[in-house]
Amino acid sequence: MKAIADLCIIPLGVGVSLGKYVAECERILRQTGLKTRLHAYGTNVEGEWDEVVAAVKACHQALHAMGAPRVSSDIRIGTRIDRDQTMEDKIRSVEEKLQEP
Amino acid sequence: MKAIADLCIIPLGVGVSLGKYVAECERILRQTGLKTRLHAYGTNVEGEWDEVVAAVKACHQALHAMGAPRVSSDIRIGTRIDRDQTMEDKIRSVEEKLQEP
Amino acid sequence: MKAIADLCIIPLGVGVSLGKYVAECERILRQTGLKTRLHAYGTNVEGEWDEVVAAVKACHQALHAMGAPRVSSDIRIGTRIDRDQTMEDKIRSVEEKLQEP
Amino acid sequence: MKAIADLCIIPLGVGVSLGKYVAECERILRQTGLKTRLHAYGTNVEGEWDEVVAAVKACHQALHAMGAPRVSSDIRIGTRIDRDQTMEDKIRSVEEKLQEP
Repeated sequence: MKAIADLCIIPLGVGVSLGKYVAECERILRQTGLKTRLHAYGTNVEGEWDEVVAAVKACHQALHAMGAPRVSSDIRIGTRIDRDQTMEDKIRSVEEKLQEP
Repeated sequence: MKAIADLCIIPLGVGVSLGKYVAECERILRQTGLKTRLHAYGTNVEGEWDEVVAAVKACHQALHAMGAPRVSSDIRIGTRIDRDQTMEDKIRSVEEKLQEP
Repeated sequence: MKAIADLCIIPLGVGVSLGKYVAECERILRQTGLKTRLHAYGTNVEGEWDEVVAAVKACHQALHAMGAPRVSSDIRIGTRIDRDQTMEDKIRSVEEKLQEP
Repeated sequence: MKAIADLCIIPLGVGVSLGKYVAECERILRQTGLKTRLHAYGTNVEGEWDEVVAAVKACHQALHAMGAPRVSSDIRIGTRIDRDQTMEDKIRSVEEKLQEP
């Protein structure tokens, strides 16, 4: 089952500067070979459901290993069986409608 | 790795009355043996990370099997390595502080 | 416009024990007169849209005043125009379907 | 109070093709003058708290006016008082750390 997801992973108990932790998660996600795209409040991820959720688990484990006692994630994850759809398809579909008069 | 999660699973393309689909997810979650507690905008779930995310996948698959072409979930999921904590602990901790003068 | 919402408010940069901050938000929400119900990963809130979002803002401001340099919330918020629905209605609808054979 | 937010707005009861509705929300957000950036599972928005939440309300009202009986949003919203930070700052901070050896 293919999934498109959006991950916002927050380490707790490590202060306010989270860039280092977010970068580590990005590194992990990119190493998986999953398609990812960083934005200002999370990261889009596309791939097989099992690989996507395994990647999120790896991020939690990595942040704990970096010293974060708690990690809290907000994950949006969508599946569809009516047709194939990529992250680019979703954005293009909206952009096209924005061009219409 | 133990996790406390909160699931809000939305089937799309099946109209506005979602109770039937939410009930099916509840049934699946309860059959897993995971600790769950329904609220007005989702369900708390506590258990091993792998079991929790497997249960979410089973819910998506079940809703697709019931006819939903698309399913979109919002999942909050937290892990901590500093100490054990249950769903009841989290609520009790807040309730106690609310009693303080 | 009436709304049913679910709030998960996380102060950052104040350590791992968040109970004190969650309790302060509960206090604020209850003072507003909005209907609220605490669960293990957030709080259900029901009321007029403007009052609900004003309450969330008041929580952010209060946590900053308590010393949190950053606050990050995850808010689910739903509106419907086909009929009135309370938080209890939503839960009852699911519970009834769970009783069906 | 300045906020950086991420909006995922889902109309219910209007079928599976949501592009038209997402585009309408984009149009509304862009008309507000708020800084916005569309991604594959939502939209980043930056601006004054009151303007951001007013824009979300305007989106719900517009989708109801387009025929959606129910609308459910997932909103991440963050505020910080320790320093100014833009959406670009957040992404740049992560990208720079990804370049480090």
